[in-house]
Amino acid sequence: MADSWVNSGERLGADLHLELAGTGGKRAALITALRDAVRSGRLTPGTRLPPYRSLAADLGLARNTVADAYAELVAEGWLTAVQGSGTRVADRAEPLTRSRTPKKAPGPPEPRHNLRQGQPDATSFPRADWLAAARRALNVAPHDAFGPGDPRGRRELREALAGYLARARGVRTSPERIVVCSGFAHALRLLFPAVLSGPLAVESYGLAFHRSIFTTARVETVPLALDEKGAVVEDLATRNVLLTPAHQFPTGGPLHHDRRTAVVGHVRASGGVLIEDDYDGEFRYDRKPVGAVQGLDPEHVVYAGSVSKSLSPGLRLGWLVLPEHLVDAVLAAKGEREAWAGVLDQLTLAEFIGAGAYDKHIRRMRQRYRRRRDVLVQALAERAPHVVPTGVAAGLHAVLRLPPGTEKSAVKAAAWQGLALDGLAAFRHPAATMSTVDGLVVGYATPPEHAYAAAVDELCRALPPA
Amino acid sequence: MADSWVNSGERLGADLHLELAGTGGKRAALITALRDAVRSGRLTPGTRLPPYRSLAADLGLARNTVADAYAELVAEGWLTAVQGSGTRVADRAEPLTRSRTPKKAPGPPEPRHNLRQGQPDATSFPRADWLAAARRALNVAPHDAFGPGDPRGRRELREALAGYLARARGVRTSPERIVVCSGFAHALRLLFPAVLSGPLAVESYGLAFHRSIFTTARVETVPLALDEKGAVVEDLATRNVLLTPAHQFPTGGPLHHDRRTAVVGHVRASGGVLIEDDYDGEFRYDRKPVGAVQGLDPEHVVYAGSVSKSLSPGLRLGWLVLPEHLVDAVLAAKGEREAWAGVLDQLTLAEFIGAGAYDKHIRRMRQRYRRRRDVLVQALAERAPHVVPTGVAAGLHAVLRLPPGTEKSAVKAAAWQGLALDGLAAFRHPAATMSTVDGLVVGYATPPEHAYAAAVDELCRALPPA
Repeated sequence: MADSWVNSGERLGADLHLELAGTGGKRAALITALRDAVRSGRLTPGTRLPPYRSLAADLGLARNTVADAYAELVAEGWLTAVQGSGTRVADRAEPLTRSRTPKKAPGPPEPRHNLRQGQPDATSFPRADWLAAARRALNVAPHDAFGPGDPRGRRELREALAGYLARARGVRTSPERIVVCSGFAHALRLLFPAVLSGPLAVESYGLAFHRSIFTTARVETVPLALDEKGAVVEDLATRNVLLTPAHQFPTGGPLHHDRRTAVVGHVRASGGVLIEDDYDGEFRYDRKPVGAVQGLDPEHVVYAGSVSKSLSPGLRLGWLVLPEHLVDAVLAAKGEREAWAGVLDQLTLAEFIGAGAYDKHIRRMRQRYRRRRDVLVQALAERAPHVVPTGVAAGLHAVLRLPPGTEKSAVKAAAWQGLALDGLAAFRHPAATMSTVDGLVVGYATPPEHAYAAAVDELCRALPPA
Repeated sequence: MADSWVNSGERLGADLHLELAGTGGKRAALITALRDAVRSGRLTPGTRLPPYRSLAADLGLARNTVADAYAELVAEGWLTAVQGSGTRVADRAEPLTRSRTPKKAPGPPEPRHNLRQGQPDATSFPRADWLAAARRALNVAPHDAFGPGDPRGRRELREALAGYLARARGVRTSPERIVVCSGFAHALRLLFPAVLSGPLAVESYGLAFHRSIFTTARVETVPLALDEKGAVVEDLATRNVLLTPAHQFPTGGPLHHDRRTAVVGHVRASGGVLIEDDYDGEFRYDRKPVGAVQGLDPEHVVYAGSVSKSLSPGLRLGWLVLPEHLVDAVLAAKGEREAWAGVLDQLTLAEFIGAGAYDKHIRRMRQRYRRRRDVLVQALAERAPHVVPTGVAAGLHAVLRLPPGTEKSAVKAAAWQGLALDGLAAFRHPAATMSTVDGLVVGYATPPEHAYAAAVDELCRALPPA
């Protein structure tokens, strides 16, 4: 079709007629139509356009209108006007695509079941309750909600969180000390290196992704050994400490009372802080609810939580509960104008908590995950009694302890069985000196409900024999 | 009330009876009630609790239940158990508040009208249409939307944006080259220093906030002079350039065709990129629509836009349209797991665009802002004809040019008149060498509709006499 336009004002006119029909301003419509023709490749680079008088006659437009349109498109760089040679389509890059077929390396099949830790069941997002909360939030939001926003996050949400966290987690705070953020990783990026400095004591097993944030921030991390009481914190060499006290990630035990006391005593004495990563504190199944360490000393604990495990990581909503002396520094790190979390999600979550829908959802999911946990534990007891599940009193994952030296082959066997999961080695701090623990980290929340039984079945098949 | 508990098991029992009534597990309820009593200050630090046998008798609970509850609260650090001295409330920090009354410095009154640039009219957020889009989005979202998410952003939104930006702004791209982010500042933080390096040519007048991002990223910026054709780009000394081609911020003119050609030619020859900050490209009132420079050479232009001016800065939604060779680097900078923008807002915006609600809203706001612009221009013509409004063919702000040396006192006069606005000096690059321009930057979108006429009236009063 481009060919026919090269020297044919008639044909260009005929085509453009169609596109100009029914639109508003002739000049603007002509510009749009010509721009579209160039963009789509119907008019190719170098193509000569008909003289503006001819095109004007063809289209029944004033000459000025067409001349203006040509001038505008020249100004925008779509056309070029060369003295004595008329108006042509400018040279431009070819139409765009981005076709990259991912290379398929030889190896195990695409996983059929995802048993990686870290994600809630994506099929259980409470869509109707969330929409109802969004409707209320949009109805009652003051106009200023749509302005640039408070860098701490919306007051409505901070108030709802202060009440909820006190009730559910024993956190002591006021809305003024809460800063809304996009999740725990964002919280770490806010804190390091702008607010807190290294070296930082961390648990010997934890998320590699978090360690990479410290590497980027040039914060040295010092791994703490773990034993049956949790992280060994009696002899800390750093001022600041990062722990997962409610449910050590990923090994699974709660931090023992002695250790809670010791770490709070340490940060109080050293003038440092404990960063308490309460990533799945709501999901505790058996007898002991473990309150947040933050309640023991709010001036020396930075408490961090999010909806990533309770609702969805897609919401990008989390919070920091801060000691008074850190609030301003965190806000400065957050940046004057970057509230990060969208205001409508913030207002919706506030309504969602206020209406009791958050508690209801947590209860529902706690029951579901506990059932899943029980299914896993029972299947192992029956079919692989030599594999001991640990860390199962809480959370969304279990650790299946394995005989020394067998983890690597077990992970490989699981992959060939079509299961995505990680071994404990993936979580080990590279500088850890405690003895290696062999085990599989099994996220039992991730598969959709209908696929869970099959996933557990496949897992049992993949486990090493006794 | 705390006093009465110090040595009185009866009284503690009586109070707790109330709190235990009607709740679930006795042990958990007792733990919660005691924790609440400590947290609220009803049980003060040092208070001795009744022996567990007495409390058990008072409450009609099994002794083990109370002993367990005490042990748990000791483990959590709320209580301390000292051999021979019974169980006491642990020492803890006092209840929390954060009372900081902002210091009121002597000076002009609190502004009655906000004429600062940069914000859309917060009263005009299309709540009903947005809610309708959110409902559709929640209805049709696949389950994986609630999983961890694609770091580029949801495909639905990137597809909607590719279509919209081609149609409205002449941007040539495919969804694969779009990366959703939280706004232009976030875009800059993604690009510098991880993806692009300095020195970077910038316009001599621009947002100080953006310059501070470069300072933090240790990226040197080199100011370009501005003249009647926009930024002077004929003799660039840096590979990379950041411009606001559609509507120079804040002085207001479009980049001239020659300059568009020159800057594209430069980045093509230097192997650099132009970063095109299309912050208010949709709001053009008079005859000339100016397409995005990106359409001229998508492989050498990084196009950045957001909903911050068109809908609300509170949504924290923006986008980068990238040359192919930068996509992977930007995704790496964004971080594997941090999608940043909430998935529901992304899906809602995709529906909002797809349903034509975005175009409708833009049209409505364009009319409203054009009316406001006209009111401002007419008021100045009548009441301060010596003050020339410039940059008014587009955007959400005007620059009122002032005689040399009068800007500072005009800003001060406006503040005393109860108007919040900035002079051009606030936007000038500290290393700029072009001659100083005196002027007021008047954001006419910010005041609510009902207050706009009064704001313009006050502005006319505050202007320096001819």
